[in-house]
Amino acid sequence: MFTIIVTPRFCDTDLLGHVNNTALPAWFEQARLPFFTLFCADVATASRSNFPLVLAHLDIDFRHEIRLGTDVEVRTLVSRLGTSSFTVHQEAWQSGELCAEGNVVLVHFDHVQRESRPLPPPLRARLEAWMTTAPITP
Amino acid sequence: MFTIIVTPRFCDTDLLGHVNNTALPAWFEQARLPFFTLFCADVATASRSNFPLVLAHLDIDFRHEIRLGTDVEVRTLVSRLGTSSFTVHQEAWQSGELCAEGNVVLVHFDHVQRESRPLPPPLRARLEAWMTTAPITP
Amino acid sequence: MFTIIVTPRFCDTDLLGHVNNTALPAWFEQARLPFFTLFCADVATASRSNFPLVLAHLDIDFRHEIRLGTDVEVRTLVSRLGTSSFTVHQEAWQSGELCAEGNVVLVHFDHVQRESRPLPPPLRARLEAWMTTAPITP
Amino acid sequence: MFTIIVTPRFCDTDLLGHVNNTALPAWFEQARLPFFTLFCADVATASRSNFPLVLAHLDIDFRHEIRLGTDVEVRTLVSRLGTSSFTVHQEAWQSGELCAEGNVVLVHFDHVQRESRPLPPPLRARLEAWMTTAPITP
Repeated sequence: MFTIIVTPRFCDTDLLGHVNNTALPAWFEQARLPFFTLFCADVATASRSNFPLVLAHLDIDFRHEIRLGTDVEVRTLVSRLGTSSFTVHQEAWQSGELCAEGNVVLVHFDHVQRESRPLPPPLRARLEAWMTTAPITP
Repeated sequence: MFTIIVTPRFCDTDLLGHVNNTALPAWFEQARLPFFTLFCADVATASRSNFPLVLAHLDIDFRHEIRLGTDVEVRTLVSRLGTSSFTVHQEAWQSGELCAEGNVVLVHFDHVQRESRPLPPPLRARLEAWMTTAPITP
Repeated sequence: MFTIIVTPRFCDTDLLGHVNNTALPAWFEQARLPFFTLFCADVATASRSNFPLVLAHLDIDFRHEIRLGTDVEVRTLVSRLGTSSFTVHQEAWQSGELCAEGNVVLVHFDHVQRESRPLPPPLRARLEAWMTTAPITP
Repeated sequence: MFTIIVTPRFCDTDLLGHVNNTALPAWFEQARLPFFTLFCADVATASRSNFPLVLAHLDIDFRHEIRLGTDVEVRTLVSRLGTSSFTVHQEAWQSGELCAEGNVVLVHFDHVQRESRPLPPPLRARLEAWMTTAPITP
């Protein structure tokens, strides 16, 4: 499990005075940056031809509201490893409280051929190391 | 089922050249505007004290990429009606193709007391009318 | 001058109960879609190599707050035509009130060579036709 | 001048492969969080009645594109102090390059009476201390 700190933005709030639900998918995506650099050697020049990853599913359960003014800890781990896809579990904690948790399914994907691809052994090994609930640096 | 048209924005795209997954929760939320006006007489001045709705869950399955330049039809219906919560099913169609579909669970909620509230009969009746798959105007 | 209608989204609001300033650049960008299709024959497959436009400047003055629940009219016209760049003026109106107005400078630009390019006569002619304050269809 | 680090998000990029212009207003707003806590004792419960600040203007000049994969340093200082308003200058630096710079005008504002208010001396003193180009902690 690895962790990033997200500072809620003023524009993340809505008229109910708390962080809007649409902010969470962006925060969770930011926390998945290590996956992007794992699958693409140079994300600075990433494009369809060299970024072999696609998101097939996302779900989020909202447990407690998130407010402006206190940083949020986003925790990320790999929870399932399939042949060509894997599931990432993510949690958002604020002030010691689990506020939101969710999952995405990412698929190893050739955007040009529009086909999924089996995860090659070196990538599987790296993803397997990210399945731990112990704190790690990706 | 009711429908809105969403024009993909340039800023909705990402470096893969298609609409990023984080745009969909915002599009689907825009399509749920009729629920907001159903639960709050004047959304222009809505705040915690008069907007008795909270989002407890969202999930989206991404079936096909969405591109810039062609409008998207977002279809919305109520798919489950519980005691104090209900589920809304939504789909995004572009060029005759189902590109994304998902669900949110909305809870009738008192933000001040921080408690859910049973759906009163008049609201239930309105929500029940929105369970149809036939095209309606909310 | 051409016009689009934007429906404010729940997630566009912030804890002050009105539309947050960061929503306006996205609304104005959506209204500039005709420029994208003018400079790029097929925006659905646009990328660095075939989308010869870059934004060099944006400014917005906020005159009046924008609230949820009432559509906004975004008006767009070309206000200056230079050798390789041009200025677009935009306004957001809600309930007959000018709420925000601003400008962007767009540059005809080769992303691969990283150089600006003179606007060719056919594009100049099209942009010149969009300088009018009379209502037009782009 | 005070500094925050922003990690570009995948969803901040657009089909040109770089960070879209609409991300910058949100990054700059995040960097202005110290102003919000200066004007509002408890931003976690901020609302119209206790958040006496409004944004009247924003401008940004885009000097160089920003790419995914390298953190961005956002620098912020007060550049003008008026009777009831002040100007904040902000810059985004990536890899030693000034990529974007801009200004916002913030007004000390009573949202209920819808009137600007003179900046009281204690707030003026704090804002004056933030006019320095030397690195400070706000």
